[in-house]
Order: sequence, then structure tokens, then C-alpha cells
Amino acid sequence: MELIKKSVTGMKDILPEEMELRDHVISLVKDVYTSFGFQSIQTPCVEHIENLCSNQGGENEKLIFRIMKRGEKLDIQGAENENDLCDSGLRYDLTLPLSRYYASNLSKLITPFKALQMGNVFRADRPQKGRFREFMQCDIDILGEPGILAEIELINATTTLLGKLDLRDFTVRINDRRMLKEMASSCGFADDRHSEVFIILDKMDKIGIDGVREELIKSGFDAEASDKYISLFEKAGNDPQKAAELTGSEEAAKSAKSIKDIMDAVNAVKSAEYSIQFDPTLVRGMSYYTGTIFEIEMKEFGSSVAGGGRYDAMIGNFTGNPVPACGFSIGFERIITILSDKGWRPVTEKKKTAFLVEKGTDAARLGEIMKEADSLRKEGNAVRIDTMAKNKKFQKESLASQGYSDFKEYYNN
Amino acid sequence: MELIKKSVTGMKDILPEEMELRDHVISLVKDVYTSFGFQSIQTPCVEHIENLCSNQGGENEKLIFRIMKRGEKLDIQGAENENDLCDSGLRYDLTLPLSRYYASNLSKLITPFKALQMGNVFRADRPQKGRFREFMQCDIDILGEPGILAEIELINATTTLLGKLDLRDFTVRINDRRMLKEMASSCGFADDRHSEVFIILDKMDKIGIDGVREELIKSGFDAEASDKYISLFEKAGNDPQKAAELTGSEEAAKSAKSIKDIMDAVNAVKSAEYSIQFDPTLVRGMSYYTGTIFEIEMKEFGSSVAGGGRYDAMIGNFTGNPVPACGFSIGFERIITILSDKGWRPVTEKKKTAFLVEKGTDAARLGEIMKEADSLRKEGNAVRIDTMAKNKKFQKESLASQGYSDFKEYYNN
Repeated sequence: MELIKKSVTGMKDILPEEMELRDHVISLVKDVYTSFGFQSIQTPCVEHIENLCSNQGGENEKLIFRIMKRGEKLDIQGAENENDLCDSGLRYDLTLPLSRYYASNLSKLITPFKALQMGNVFRADRPQKGRFREFMQCDIDILGEPGILAEIELINATTTLLGKLDLRDFTVRINDRRMLKEMASSCGFADDRHSEVFIILDKMDKIGIDGVREELIKSGFDAEASDKYISLFEKAGNDPQKAAELTGSEEAAKSAKSIKDIMDAVNAVKSAEYSIQFDPTLVRGMSYYTGTIFEIEMKEFGSSVAGGGRYDAMIGNFTGNPVPACGFSIGFERIITILSDKGWRPVTEKKKTAFLVEKGTDAARLGEIMKEADSLRKEGNAVRIDTMAKNKKFQKESLASQGYSDFKEYYNN
Repeated sequence: MELIKKSVTGMKDILPEEMELRDHVISLVKDVYTSFGFQSIQTPCVEHIENLCSNQGGENEKLIFRIMKRGEKLDIQGAENENDLCDSGLRYDLTLPLSRYYASNLSKLITPFKALQMGNVFRADRPQKGRFREFMQCDIDILGEPGILAEIELINATTTLLGKLDLRDFTVRINDRRMLKEMASSCGFADDRHSEVFIILDKMDKIGIDGVREELIKSGFDAEASDKYISLFEKAGNDPQKAAELTGSEEAAKSAKSIKDIMDAVNAVKSAEYSIQFDPTLVRGMSYYTGTIFEIEMKEFGSSVAGGGRYDAMIGNFTGNPVPACGFSIGFERIITILSDKGWRPVTEKKKTAFLVEKGTDAARLGEIMKEADSLRKEGNAVRIDTMAKNKKFQKESLASQGYSDFKEYYNN
């Protein structure tokens, strides 16, 4: 078999320049989130196929990379379908492994458990620009806190992080699954068709409010109900209490109070330049959300850079007992692209010096030169020692392209 | 299908305490190695099956986790063996992906290319204590430098790193594949049986020099040659020039000079308390080594904590042209175990404070408390905000078990 130079389809080799940025951001993420008391954890990239295919991953379950059984367990002749050939697969997100982790290690964790998980996930998506089959996710989750303290902390920690990355002028959009349901119910949409309604509502950004109305009717929903629904959004605007009043439901009033309290606390503590706004049309795709949902939008970059919400039912599937849970995930790859396009560099960058040593320099002299390099390193510089090339000009230019600004030359005596 | 709580066989969930240590070590590794001019890179966890099965991975090729083809490409009925069902697998080391990476991205890299790669690798090993099926490797490699500058830099960087982890009193054992071959040849062992001889010699640590002699003879090697071989090691001791003289070969003399030069330069620059020693019995398992080989041994822990060497032929398999290469890999998991057993903590650790807030505190007050937390965080503390539990004593004890030393309580007015 011939060797293949290119990386496998959809998974990328990361070049030094991008990696330097990623390493800076990873270190900043860990620094900020641990300063909020989140504890770093790690789960395996490989997960039981039973867990991956348990209807908790939505569309992602169609994108699983399956790992083949080995040795005697692998019965190719007797296999009827792909699940006969595998017992595990690569994780498609970090939330499912977190739930399993929490259930498995509960006795060794403190309550509430505040987890930070950064790791690669794998999805057999159609490869396209900016979308990869292996990419990093970065999630913070608070498990075991039923109150809004969880939501406020998650939002405060994440917006603090974005501020340290010099990302400003963003909007935190907030809604609540309960409010979503109450608004739909109050217009006469049947409970068992809510998810259909929300899938259409979720297209608001693309098709506008009139488009949503049209698509509702086209999908067989009652025209009167659809009209009422649209007018509800127009009347409610960005006021959760107004939205609750219009539905006239007690559950909606509770949800409005919770949204308002979260907004008030976030507004009181926030230092960075951003706003938080109730958005009754915010849906968030995953079906596992049960309460507050939120998303951070940066108009400048035309997309969301973080999203999350409360999912009080999922962990109970593993533990057997309901465990309140709330999480926030930053779009790590999206943020790297934004920072890279902006040419962002951290302020703490090291000065880079290159020592060029003439070929044939003897061991004793090499030792001396290296000692000199070590003392510069102790002062906080990065020092690289290279054999002097024949084309010294080209050598320096290529080093300069990697950030080396200082050169020292060492010749044989 | 029922959900499974435990992680998949042989792959572990990493708990917060271990993860804190790992994060510190990872950050220190990146800091030290980039200060030596190594550039951080990343390759995908998934690699082409053609590359993984190209006879460059030795025994590891038997331990590959294969990833199933998907969709139309997967033909279960028509498949005869496992390779018909897969086109990729999980990487079992970082050296093979590095070689592919270098060949694929050569035009965007500077020469010599000094790479730092940290990442998880996967081996379907029999699970046993301290050995996992997913574990982190941490490699530095210099590609494109034919001279001993590469070896010296790798040893200096790695020993500097160990010093920063407060690991001392270790020994760098050094040998050269060329010396190994010349010593074997000079005793009359045929070239095509050298690898058999070296596999036996590699057991020296376990079976002693007499055991090696016995096993050579038992394996059908000439008794006279075996005796001569054993006595050669006894006479050479730790002196490379003596070893070379005893073989009488020019190639061995060149190799001895190279070993001595490396040792001299390392001794001149070294600041940490360790020694470097020629060891003619050092073999190192992988067949791809072509020149210098080295290993760091810590007697205290009865095992090696790092190993590497020169492999000038491997990259050429991908690029088509020979590229000199030399690498050093620290045993990341081994080092974590040692540091964890020693109770090692970094000096830069943050002070941890927990705020306990009475249940039902209103949003405005929560905002104030959070502002207070933020200002402590700005001073460099880690501050965690929790709802006050009914059993406050237990709550504080469990927080204290995670390093929280300071508590502040906030009651409703």
C-alpha cells in the first residue's frame, strides 16, 4: 500500500501559526474558567455505541464514526448491519460524555459540580469551508444547581472570557423553553406539534417573520393560530413580562421572572461592553433543553459564537435521579477564525531570538553558546539555535516570518 | 439499548484533581519547549489505514482501532477481511502522523522544522494497571538538521523541562545504533540476525548480563560469539572510545566521536542535577532508529521517563527524499503518575475562595456579590460562588478537599 501525504478527508493538520493562537486561547480559557471555580475534566474520545445512539444527540447521531470490534469479537460473516461490527464510536459532542462521567464518578465530585471540558469531537459531516470532521469543543457546565445562580455564572464567566479575547459589542440573547411552549400553546398549537413549530420559528434569522408565518401555514398549521403567533412576537418585543401577560399563563409568568432576574443580575455585574436581551424567537436546536436557553451573537461576524441552556432531564437518564444541569459552550473553532482574521495577538507574547551557529563548531563552544541561550530563556525569551545556512539571508527571512526579530551569529574561531 | 455509566474498557475519565496537575504540566511543557523554539502543531487523531499499516509502527500495528467506512462505501456482505470495512484508524503514536504532516506541509514550514506535538494516541492493548488504551504522548522533533546540534538541543530542552518539574537525579543513557551494529558485527553476528540479537540484549535490565548470554546461546547463536559479545560490554564499560577501539571499526570510531561530542556539550550546558552516560547495551525498541538513541532513567521510579533518537530514513518514505530527523518523547502519563505520587504542586497555584450565598437572594444582591467575586478574580484568585447548603459544615469540608481555603458567607437581609 502506498503512503498518503494528505490528512484524512475533513480533518486538518494545524500549522504552527494557527497552533500558537490556539494554544494562547486554550490557556486563556482555562485561566478564566478556573478562576470562576470550574474544574477541568477529560472524558475519552471513544464512547459506548449504546450511549452515542440513545436519541440524545439529535441529528449528530447520523454522523457517528464507528470503531470496529477487534479479534474474536469481530464476526464479519455473521454481521447483518454496522452495529453488529462495532461496540464503540467517536464522541460527537462533550455533553453526552459529561453526563456519563457525572453518573459514573458522582461520589468523587463536589456538588454542585462545575465542569470545564475542552476536547476534540468527531462528526462525519459533509466537508465544507470552515467545517471539519474533527474539531475542538469547549464547554462549561454546572450540575446540581437548580437556581438561576447557574445561568448567571455561566453568562458572566463566558462574557468575561470573550472580553479577554478583545471581543466586544456582542449581544447575549436569552429565552426559556417554558416561555416558548406557553407562547405556542396560547395560540392554539397542540403540544405534540410544538417541535415542528419551533423548527420553523428557528428559521426567523433567514426567512424573516413573514416567512415564518407562510411556512407555518404551508406546513398545515391553522392560519388564525399562525397569525396570532406572529402578532404575539410583535407585541411582546423584548419584554419577557409583556410576553407572559399576553399568554396569560402562570408558567409563562414564572419563566418571565426567571429571565428578568438573570438579566438584572448579569447587567449588575457586567463590565465588558455587551448587552443582554430577551428574544422570544430564540429556539436553540437541541431537544434536551428544558428551561433557560441563551446564545451570544456577534453581528460583525454574522453568527453566534456561544450557546447553551438548561437541560434538567438528561443526566437523570444516566443516574436514575433527576439532576439540574445548565451549560454554555463557546464556538472554539469559530472564535479562532475570528481572532485569526483580526490578526489578534496576546499581549504576553515572548520575544523571539535566533542564534545562528557556523557549521563544524566544536562541542565545547556549542556548550557555551547554549548556556548563553539558556540565560536569555530565563529572562523570558524564546531562543532557537540553528546551524547557519549557506543562504543566510533566506534563513533569516524565513525565521522572521515566524516572529523571530533578533539574530545572533556565532562563527568558528 | 441501555445507557452505560462506565467509560469504555481501558480508557479513563480524568477526575478534577488529576486534571489540574495535567493542565499545569501541559502548560509548563508548552512553555519550556516553545522557549527552545519548538513550534506547537497538531495532527488529526484519525489517520489513513494505509499509513498506519505501513510497517513503520512495529508491534503497535497490531493494536490499531479501525474506523468503519460509512454509507455506500461500507459493503458488509462483500467484505472478506477487516481492511475491506475501513479506510482509517486511530493513530497509535505521534511520529507517523508527524512524518505525514511534514511531507504534506513542507512548503509552509521553516527548515530545520522544530515540532512540539502533544496529543492522545490509541492502542488496543490488554488493559492493565497504569496502562491505558487512550493516553497522551508528548514529542519534540527536529527535522532537517543532520548534525549533533539536534541531539544536544533535544536533550537540553527535555532535561530543562524535568528540572522545572522538580525531577532530579536522573541519568540520560546514550548509545548509537551504528555502535550497536558494529559491536555485534565485530563479534561475528550476521547482519540479518542483528535485530534478534538486540531484542535479547534489550532484556539486560531484567535478566542481567549472564541471562543475555544464556538466551543468545539458547536462541542458536554461536557460543564463542556470545561470550565475546558479553566480554566486549564488560571491557567497554561506559567509555564510547574504548568500545570503538575494541571493535576496531572506523564506523564505530565515528559513532564514538559523535556520542562523546554530544556528552561534552550537554555536560557544558547542563544546570540541573543529572548525569549523561554512554550505555552500549541501550537498544530502544523501534526499528526506525538509524543513529543516536537516548533514554532518561529515574532509578527512584524504576523506569524510563523519556526516550528518543535519530531516525533519518522514515520521513523520506513520505517525501521521497531523505530528511534527517531526531526526536525525544517524554512519558507524559508516567510523569503524571510520579508527580501525583509525590504530591507535587506548582508554585504558581492560585488561592481559592468560595462564596456561599443564602438561597433566595434577589437578583440585585446577587449582582453585587458577583462584582465582589470579580474583583478578587482580578487579583489572581479563583472564586467559586455556590448556593449555601443546608449542611454548611459538609459543604465547606468538601470544598476544602478541592483546595478551597477561604470562605465568605452572604445572607439575605
